[in-house]
Amino acid sequence: MRSNSLLKFRKINSEKDPGYGYLTPIQYPDEIPFAIKRVYYIYGTKSNRKRGSHAHKKLHQILICINGSVKIYLESADGKKEVVLNDPSKGLYVGPGNWREMSEFSDGAVLLVLASEKYDESDYIRDYDEFVKYIKKQEK
Amino acid sequence: MRSNSLLKFRKINSEKDPGYGYLTPIQYPDEIPFAIKRVYYIYGTKSNRKRGSHAHKKLHQILICINGSVKIYLESADGKKEVVLNDPSKGLYVGPGNWREMSEFSDGAVLLVLASEKYDESDYIRDYDEFVKYIKKQEK
Repeated sequence: MRSNSLLKFRKINSEKDPGYGYLTPIQYPDEIPFAIKRVYYIYGTKSNRKRGSHAHKKLHQILICINGSVKIYLESADGKKEVVLNDPSKGLYVGPGNWREMSEFSDGAVLLVLASEKYDESDYIRDYDEFVKYIKKQEK
Repeated sequence: MRSNSLLKFRKINSEKDPGYGYLTPIQYPDEIPFAIKRVYYIYGTKSNRKRGSHAHKKLHQILICINGSVKIYLESADGKKEVVLNDPSKGLYVGPGNWREMSEFSDGAVLLVLASEKYDESDYIRDYDEFVKYIKKQEK
């Protein structure tokens, strides 16, 4: 699996009644490549603010924009990438070694994150220069 | 723990910058009484539709209205209850033996559910009369 990639989840609906809405189920190993140890969600972020600005050494995550839209910038040994998440049935897999920045939160945007480990501050790389050195070292 | 109860989660924000928004983290055993084996979310449901109308024999769940609002009706051996969920930092714990109905979904409502087990059709009670018999038998 690449260090980051877009996943498509099911949208279970009622053929007889479109107004019934959708249900998107996620469990390991059917939809995602890790068991969920932690979830968190981000909301109430103004459109001109940026969040994230860190990488993880071991953590695997799935980012899902469950309402509204948000722009995700990723940088890893594979290169740089920008993804706009605006569909609750799309999940962005982000593996270890990805610097991520979230921006352009729409009004009412909610970003749900599923994580492979419990919170561990020692797993974070919060300094960009340190991150660049870290992925160069990994490549050797 | 009672068969259902309202939980309050943290809303982590930046004191210096209210526009930065909120982050609500959830992991076992810190915020919830079970490890998460499955998540699902419901969206796009029209306000005049009703969802749910079933109970579980073993499953524990947390219901969180992560955007908008939704009304939850619960019926268990403890009695009947109605709760309006309209705050991403509130979670409704729903244990085994609760008949649940979700209604009055607001425009853009998203209901996130954290579940203690993987999907298992044999754990569902989908017939209301069968449910009433089931909880009477449990009380003996």
